[in-house]
Amino acid sequence: MTRSLAATPTTTATDHSLQARRLGVHTQDQAIVFMRTDCHVCRSEGLSARSQVSVRSDDQEIVATLYQISTDVVQLNEVGLSEAAWHRLQVTDGDRLTVRHADPVESLAEMRRRIYGHRLDDGSLRSIVSDIVAGRYSDVHLSAFVTACAALPLDHNETIALTRVMFEVGERLSWPGSLIVDKHSVGGLPGNRTTPIVVAIVAAHGLTMPKTSSRAITSPAGTADAMETLAPVDLDLAAIRRVVERESGCIVWGGSVRLSPADDVLIRVERALDLDSEGQLIASVLSKKIAAGSTHVVLDLPVGPTAKIRSADTAATLSQRLVDVAGAFGLQVRVVQSDGSQPVGQGIGPALEARDVLAVLQDCPGAPADLRDRACTLAGALLELGGDVLSGTGRSLAGQILADGRAWRKFQNICEAQGGMRIPAEAAHQHPLLVARSGRIVRIDNRKLAKLAKLAGAPDSKAAGVHMECKLGHQVQAGQPFCVVHAETRGELEYALDYAAAHLDIFEVSADE
Amino acid sequence: MTRSLAATPTTTATDHSLQARRLGVHTQDQAIVFMRTDCHVCRSEGLSARSQVSVRSDDQEIVATLYQISTDVVQLNEVGLSEAAWHRLQVTDGDRLTVRHADPVESLAEMRRRIYGHRLDDGSLRSIVSDIVAGRYSDVHLSAFVTACAALPLDHNETIALTRVMFEVGERLSWPGSLIVDKHSVGGLPGNRTTPIVVAIVAAHGLTMPKTSSRAITSPAGTADAMETLAPVDLDLAAIRRVVERESGCIVWGGSVRLSPADDVLIRVERALDLDSEGQLIASVLSKKIAAGSTHVVLDLPVGPTAKIRSADTAATLSQRLVDVAGAFGLQVRVVQSDGSQPVGQGIGPALEARDVLAVLQDCPGAPADLRDRACTLAGALLELGGDVLSGTGRSLAGQILADGRAWRKFQNICEAQGGMRIPAEAAHQHPLLVARSGRIVRIDNRKLAKLAKLAGAPDSKAAGVHMECKLGHQVQAGQPFCVVHAETRGELEYALDYAAAHLDIFEVSADE
Repeated sequence: MTRSLAATPTTTATDHSLQARRLGVHTQDQAIVFMRTDCHVCRSEGLSARSQVSVRSDDQEIVATLYQISTDVVQLNEVGLSEAAWHRLQVTDGDRLTVRHADPVESLAEMRRRIYGHRLDDGSLRSIVSDIVAGRYSDVHLSAFVTACAALPLDHNETIALTRVMFEVGERLSWPGSLIVDKHSVGGLPGNRTTPIVVAIVAAHGLTMPKTSSRAITSPAGTADAMETLAPVDLDLAAIRRVVERESGCIVWGGSVRLSPADDVLIRVERALDLDSEGQLIASVLSKKIAAGSTHVVLDLPVGPTAKIRSADTAATLSQRLVDVAGAFGLQVRVVQSDGSQPVGQGIGPALEARDVLAVLQDCPGAPADLRDRACTLAGALLELGGDVLSGTGRSLAGQILADGRAWRKFQNICEAQGGMRIPAEAAHQHPLLVARSGRIVRIDNRKLAKLAKLAGAPDSKAAGVHMECKLGHQVQAGQPFCVVHAETRGELEYALDYAAAHLDIFEVSADE
Repeated sequence: MTRSLAATPTTTATDHSLQARRLGVHTQDQAIVFMRTDCHVCRSEGLSARSQVSVRSDDQEIVATLYQISTDVVQLNEVGLSEAAWHRLQVTDGDRLTVRHADPVESLAEMRRRIYGHRLDDGSLRSIVSDIVAGRYSDVHLSAFVTACAALPLDHNETIALTRVMFEVGERLSWPGSLIVDKHSVGGLPGNRTTPIVVAIVAAHGLTMPKTSSRAITSPAGTADAMETLAPVDLDLAAIRRVVERESGCIVWGGSVRLSPADDVLIRVERALDLDSEGQLIASVLSKKIAAGSTHVVLDLPVGPTAKIRSADTAATLSQRLVDVAGAFGLQVRVVQSDGSQPVGQGIGPALEARDVLAVLQDCPGAPADLRDRACTLAGALLELGGDVLSGTGRSLAGQILADGRAWRKFQNICEAQGGMRIPAEAAHQHPLLVARSGRIVRIDNRKLAKLAKLAGAPDSKAAGVHMECKLGHQVQAGQPFCVVHAETRGELEYALDYAAAHLDIFEVSADE
């Protein structure tokens, strides 16, 4: 009844070779392959739709999700590749690829234990993060990991371990000189675009600040998104090094140098879930700072009822955890709490925020005072932490560097060094949200405002977002605009306005007395 | 600086119409649409890769994931559809479809609250489950929901609410007569395929048992998978009704009548995560029983160190919760705990298990005694719960109905009524796992055995799986087989054997004395 095979089979017994074909399918970072249901590989390997498969070229191997095709969109001897798969495999049309079942992902057992409340040690986290970076986790797995770390927050040891593992799996930068400064704002506050200003001030003073920024997670714009409307930010490591050697500073996108490649994957999932857990936040921030070679870092924590950090208590706990975890890696950190009760500046969205930045740097009369103040506070803290400026005098020194034009010149030089300065685009479609009833503005819902800007197309549509026409405490008249919605397409504008019509509590106005 | 649009825009202002094209892309249940990056809809709507979009035909609307294409795999005026999207929209090639941004999924806020430990009430769960059934949750969202309910288990109220909501969003069956019996085994035990036998016995006795079964979640075979090798199981409601009216019983796949459509979606994600949380398990089991119109249900809980339920304590808690939640819906439940320390019968995998079932029904001399005993115990409990059989006599009555051939005749009649009896396939590739050292078998790892059968191709490859050649306590000689791995393809066989070679502890043998 049972038959033995003559010889022990080996995994090379079958020819799994197919010809690579670029299908031009854009899936963000998702590696997908398309194969005919009836091709010899699907049949011999027993592959089914949505299997995880290993795809191997001569010198690369990736894990991809298989979709099967029963029409001649791909041929029997072909494997179609999404753009993400194509670029990771580094192939050309017609190259031979072998496809087989992906190996079982052993670290998923660790992830399941974590869901059920068991803590992870260095080894477990290393295997999970390595598998994530290798593309072995599907969206279902990534989301489970992110959710588990939000439901039962990472403890101190796990946070240190995750931080370490996250920078270990990426590249690590080193710079000439032993003092490298950096800053980071913990998001949640629309328009809080101080970084380009801070870099310009600090670099103008001579400190080295090679700033790598992220794109938006759940916000309408990250620093990299806003900066990209002013200059190229997608620089490779050699280019970044040249910019920093020449200008002492840069403002580039961190993802292009894979400083913390796991974070880039996790960020997409956190964004889809609109989740940001404290431990992952700390590991995300600090792993990038350590990988970027920073030694002295100022962290900005905006606190407000609708900011990411909602109370002084939460801010105090987070500050302490940031300082503690940083200390485990010899990183000097100073945390600055700031007002997070309303947006900063006027613009929300990449190009709109970039214009506020330009206005402050150029010292225009109408430049947003709050953005200028915040930038000076943070730059001042860095000048003091950097060591050669007396405690208590950093802030006014920063203001001086702005006022005398040194920061603006430095910023222009940095933009030139990064590939040339650009003028931020203006949106084709603009529509005001009008005050219905006169009174005083007593509350602004940052989260709904961010959502409004995102529905208008930010950050993917660079010119999209919201331009604020009021601040907390202002007296406003019926018919006057609260803000103006900017969109690149009519569809997106309509979409944002539908949301605004359904959420009239974005701005709260108290009755006139 | 700000411009107002002349009129308030409406969402019908732009023509978002494209021609439907069936691409024949198989993605399991995932609705995907493919559109050119440069088509007028992507441009005017501001759609980007992996956006969630709403796709509307004349009378259907679905939510789908957008992949963009920059080659002529689809034309500028076309929208390519995956098979899942195609079937849900019920269109034909060339039909006009409109595509726009999907509406924001409001229930995601509830899901996020749940991740952070807030309990869900009826209304919140209803909106989440409705959105899931409508296809508005991506894999990332589904996984977060499943993970949150595993990390912080559903409490009593949530479990009742989830049970209610899950049957409310599906179809609900009603049958002639007020007494409808049913059974369910809480999985985790390979080969535990009692259901077809129990239905045959109970229906032969005259009770009404319209059995709707599921496909495998994390196991190598569900009852529906095994039964499908013996008769069609994918019947619509009218067909099921005809079978039950004629034969008092059926064994069909529950998913085809959408008794609990949310469960079908969640099961795929639980399977990918290899997670099964207690509250979801209860809601999954009971919502299907209630939707199926059952009034009296026997539940089989196998308990063993590597079964789904590992201790008598866990079994007792789960039993109590099942009875309590069932009671809230007026459902009478009797829980039977059984031995879960090793596989039942000899076969593991759809066709192999089906053969064990046939052997028991035909009362063959070599039929697996353990499978027969379990089936009689459960059928006996149902005969007693059904009311006309004295307590304590059900089991022997069940044995009598098997022995005198009534159950076998009934089973053949049910198969005929479901569309005709089939002969289970035999696998082309079979390879034994041999005992290395003589001794006594002291432990069998159900989980690794299930994994071995899955790697061999079960349940998608019907003939694949494992055929057991030993039981706990048996004396085995070196060179004798523990079991035989069955696979339909050489690739799958190799894959399973690689796993077996790396996990020599599937069977534990004590040294000879």
